[in-house]
Amino acid sequence: MNISTLKKVFVGRPLPTAQARHERLSKRTALAVFASDALSSVAYATEEILLMLVTAGAAALAFSVPIGVAISVLIAVVASSYRQTILAYPHGGGAYIVTKDNLGTLPSLVAGAALLVDYVLTVAVSVAAGVAALTSAFPGLYGHRVLLGVSCIALIATANLRGIRESGALFALPTYLFIVSFFGMLGYGYVRWTFGWETPAPPEHAGMATQAVTTFFLLRAFSQGCTALTGVEAVSDGVPAFKPSEARNARIVLAWLALVLITLFMGVTFLARHYHIIPLAEETVVSQLARQIFGGGLLYYEIQAVTVLILVLAANTSFADFPRLSYFLARDGFIPRQFGTRGDRLVFSNGILILGGTAALLIIVFGGDTHALIPLYALGVFVSFTLSQSSMVRRWLTRREEGWSWRAWLNGLGAATTGLVMVVIAVTKFAAGAWVVVLLIPFLVMGFVMIHRHYADVARQLSLDGYAGPPPIQHTVLVLVGDLHKGVTAALRYAQALSPSVRAVYVELDPDKTRRLEEKWGKWGLGVPLVVLTSPYRSLLTPFLEYINHLLALGANHVVTIVIPEFVPARWWQHLLHNQTALLIKGALLFRKGVVVVDVPFHLQE
Amino acid sequence: MNISTLKKVFVGRPLPTAQARHERLSKRTALAVFASDALSSVAYATEEILLMLVTAGAAALAFSVPIGVAISVLIAVVASSYRQTILAYPHGGGAYIVTKDNLGTLPSLVAGAALLVDYVLTVAVSVAAGVAALTSAFPGLYGHRVLLGVSCIALIATANLRGIRESGALFALPTYLFIVSFFGMLGYGYVRWTFGWETPAPPEHAGMATQAVTTFFLLRAFSQGCTALTGVEAVSDGVPAFKPSEARNARIVLAWLALVLITLFMGVTFLARHYHIIPLAEETVVSQLARQIFGGGLLYYEIQAVTVLILVLAANTSFADFPRLSYFLARDGFIPRQFGTRGDRLVFSNGILILGGTAALLIIVFGGDTHALIPLYALGVFVSFTLSQSSMVRRWLTRREEGWSWRAWLNGLGAATTGLVMVVIAVTKFAAGAWVVVLLIPFLVMGFVMIHRHYADVARQLSLDGYAGPPPIQHTVLVLVGDLHKGVTAALRYAQALSPSVRAVYVELDPDKTRRLEEKWGKWGLGVPLVVLTSPYRSLLTPFLEYINHLLALGANHVVTIVIPEFVPARWWQHLLHNQTALLIKGALLFRKGVVVVDVPFHLQE
Repeated sequence: MNISTLKKVFVGRPLPTAQARHERLSKRTALAVFASDALSSVAYATEEILLMLVTAGAAALAFSVPIGVAISVLIAVVASSYRQTILAYPHGGGAYIVTKDNLGTLPSLVAGAALLVDYVLTVAVSVAAGVAALTSAFPGLYGHRVLLGVSCIALIATANLRGIRESGALFALPTYLFIVSFFGMLGYGYVRWTFGWETPAPPEHAGMATQAVTTFFLLRAFSQGCTALTGVEAVSDGVPAFKPSEARNARIVLAWLALVLITLFMGVTFLARHYHIIPLAEETVVSQLARQIFGGGLLYYEIQAVTVLILVLAANTSFADFPRLSYFLARDGFIPRQFGTRGDRLVFSNGILILGGTAALLIIVFGGDTHALIPLYALGVFVSFTLSQSSMVRRWLTRREEGWSWRAWLNGLGAATTGLVMVVIAVTKFAAGAWVVVLLIPFLVMGFVMIHRHYADVARQLSLDGYAGPPPIQHTVLVLVGDLHKGVTAALRYAQALSPSVRAVYVELDPDKTRRLEEKWGKWGLGVPLVVLTSPYRSLLTPFLEYINHLLALGANHVVTIVIPEFVPARWWQHLLHNQTALLIKGALLFRKGVVVVDVPFHLQE
Repeated sequence: MNISTLKKVFVGRPLPTAQARHERLSKRTALAVFASDALSSVAYATEEILLMLVTAGAAALAFSVPIGVAISVLIAVVASSYRQTILAYPHGGGAYIVTKDNLGTLPSLVAGAALLVDYVLTVAVSVAAGVAALTSAFPGLYGHRVLLGVSCIALIATANLRGIRESGALFALPTYLFIVSFFGMLGYGYVRWTFGWETPAPPEHAGMATQAVTTFFLLRAFSQGCTALTGVEAVSDGVPAFKPSEARNARIVLAWLALVLITLFMGVTFLARHYHIIPLAEETVVSQLARQIFGGGLLYYEIQAVTVLILVLAANTSFADFPRLSYFLARDGFIPRQFGTRGDRLVFSNGILILGGTAALLIIVFGGDTHALIPLYALGVFVSFTLSQSSMVRRWLTRREEGWSWRAWLNGLGAATTGLVMVVIAVTKFAAGAWVVVLLIPFLVMGFVMIHRHYADVARQLSLDGYAGPPPIQHTVLVLVGDLHKGVTAALRYAQALSPSVRAVYVELDPDKTRRLEEKWGKWGLGVPLVVLTSPYRSLLTPFLEYINHLLALGANHVVTIVIPEFVPARWWQHLLHNQTALLIKGALLFRKGVVVVDVPFHLQE
């Protein structure tokens, strides 16, 4: 089975360009498609808050509810702000495009860099959390977290390389199952708690306080919880996918998404508090909660299953977002062009491979541990929130469209709030890992700018404007020979087809061999003159390079074509036994001005 | 500083071929040059015997002296046997050559494989033992054994890549220092012991017997000690290096070498017994002995220093032997040809690099531990001893030269003894590691045979005997274009120099782009016709490959030259931003019959 067959099995047959039409989504399906990323954070946001608070002792866990409320308010503000973006950008208002439109190139690159980083982290965090949900239910798998995470990413990447055209149907079922199951669990849990059915007593063992409750500490716990906001912006990116009227439907879906997210997140946070859940390394908070509410039966496993599913879907979302943003950046010349071309399944294969590879690397480096990855997360999202909302303020102020004044205030509130949270996240999580992102974003932006400059410079150098055309060239063809045999005669014949004046060049290492070669040459040399170069230091290369330099010096437009006879063995290992000289010569002449190297293959039979 | 400058600093300037003359050695210098390998085993052979014996309890250590005597007899037999070889092969009688001459190709390949393996092990074991001598004196370095070992190998390899022409002078001083110092130590130690000056009492703690004293056990201890014989054959390999009359001088030196070796080895073994030395992990037996005899002063450090030096010299010997044997094997077509060419410092660089790399790998894999490496060692040497001596028997029987009868008996004794020991080593050390060598030797021989067959087959396929000459070819030149700019016009101009009938080929991915290209083409296309291929699946490759197949199908002797315009950016990282298409095309057409791919570089400025 060759590569091409393998590719067909895993990636599928190529699709014709004509199939690149868009599927339009109903509101119900759209909620499922765009909600998975945002809702999936319910699986870990509460846990990350508790994990921080518990370091100040079990009593500090009481702060989880007010922190949860603050985050819920933040969700409402951001969602309202993005509802304005949808109105202004019915063709899709990702942070990169919106910022570029209103604040200019450099800020848009910051937004772009922040988003790329965050898409990678979304994959890594979602998959790690999904694996944690799985290993909570099946503790025997805990030791295989890294393998499970990497396999999961490989699976999602493969699916995306095939192109997930059935996306609507694929997303609807698990997302609604997740929503219904969690509402069910939280409702039943609330009833149990109100009626006081076997609510557990607070455990005593978890009271080891290593930290004082300071403002910084509470802000850090708040920052950890801000991962709940990741994915809220997804709807505004995807407006064109809605059925008409697109903007109206998208705004309605975003409002519903915010409402569901706040309810689920607050529900988990509230019940975790009142069921006295203490975060553990080997079992997630949601798993503990579900176990206490349902007592570990079938319903418990159902909750874990839908949690895994929605987290996988969330990771999958990035596999659409990252390549799309890469496409825009490549189109504008800020990242290598190969991110701008679709593969033969109509997907941006390079973006998918880079995203999958980087996320898998993060899983490996961080040992598949969600908590280790969280400090790097969310900062990028808030950078893009802030830039995107600020752009909207600028837009309303410039265009003065209907209702511009209060809309500018609303987006201004969004920008100010998310900007403040961005600073809080950067400062409180800096030492824990956010510094990586703080350094990485400007580094990426610098890379974008350098690449852009290079492409612009190349375009200028290649431009035909006012160009008189290439000068006529003087052409010399040399055949480099080390012996005379069938392969060499084939190369000589080929060289004769290129030019009437061909010379063969031989570097003498042993005068006896030269004599034998010259004897053969008379009979088999096809009339090509043989130039013998002496080599006092047994170097093949030096005399030959000197000869070429001498030829090149003869004229400014001189091009020397060097024909090298090369064997093509029948089996791969035989390559090791041949062609070292050809390789050496090619290496020495690679990218040499005025020199063109041509291998003439001679095919050996088995 | 570029690669070439770096190479000059570390490896030195190239040397002209005329300097490849031979230094002739006096007997005194020759002893120093050829003795280091054999004598260096005094540093570890006794220890390896004791290390085995002590597992049967401290009382079993008494067997060391009779085992030492047996090994000394073996040394005498082997040396006498090799003195015959010198007589018969005054131009150098390595086991490979002698066996090839008398027993044929396959046995000679077995000898060659065995020797290659043993040269690698000589380097690894000598360096590990040298490091052990060093860390015995400076226990603080014990944790850095692997680093020390690898650095030492790198140093020796670099020195050899430069070419050690001063070898006589280099070897004489440390070897004689070693001989004199060890004779001094052993003599003084013997006196102290005879007169009973503070001879230590036997320690009580080392009596933990885990093993019974069986015949197998004693044979295993004997096998461990047989490492003392490694290097004894060196003199017979290097006969031509002696001053005339070469054979006579070489025979005298070999006799002296055997005598010195036996004396030193027996001396260490005898005194180790009577000074009640128990082998320890962190201090060598020689170090313990020197410490007891000299009491740890300056003389103790001197013993350690000369031990390190002679072991380094022993490792260095393999750096001459391995590349020389590789040269013979490459010349005869059994290993890749590149082992047969001298580098620009007149040394066989490839052999040196392979030897150094493999030995360093062994040091790393075995943690720089001599004892772990020993079970793999010596087997190869005894394989080559046996084959070489058997060859001599065959030679005497065939040629019937003067004294052939008793000489055949002497070599026959050598062959029988070493053959027996070979079997004893293979059996007793099999489970401890010798199995690796037992498997590796036939594996290498198989490789040699396969390579030889391949080269023979290629020579047959390339032979010009009865060849009518290559058929005339039909030549088509295609320029693959993706756009039209200065780089492409340069490629078109070049293609026109190759053939009067050039076509440009463009694969259409977007009809609008085609229209724009066609407009430009009229003005800048240099009159080259443009072929536009459609691609329903957006693949650049498939339509182009189909077009080439179509052209190739036109005639049996059709050659298609594909000219690809390629950018040469000014900086390395910019390569990532270009030429992916060119690379893809080259990959797809690599080694395609009837197709020649030519990159025409277009040099971008900074």
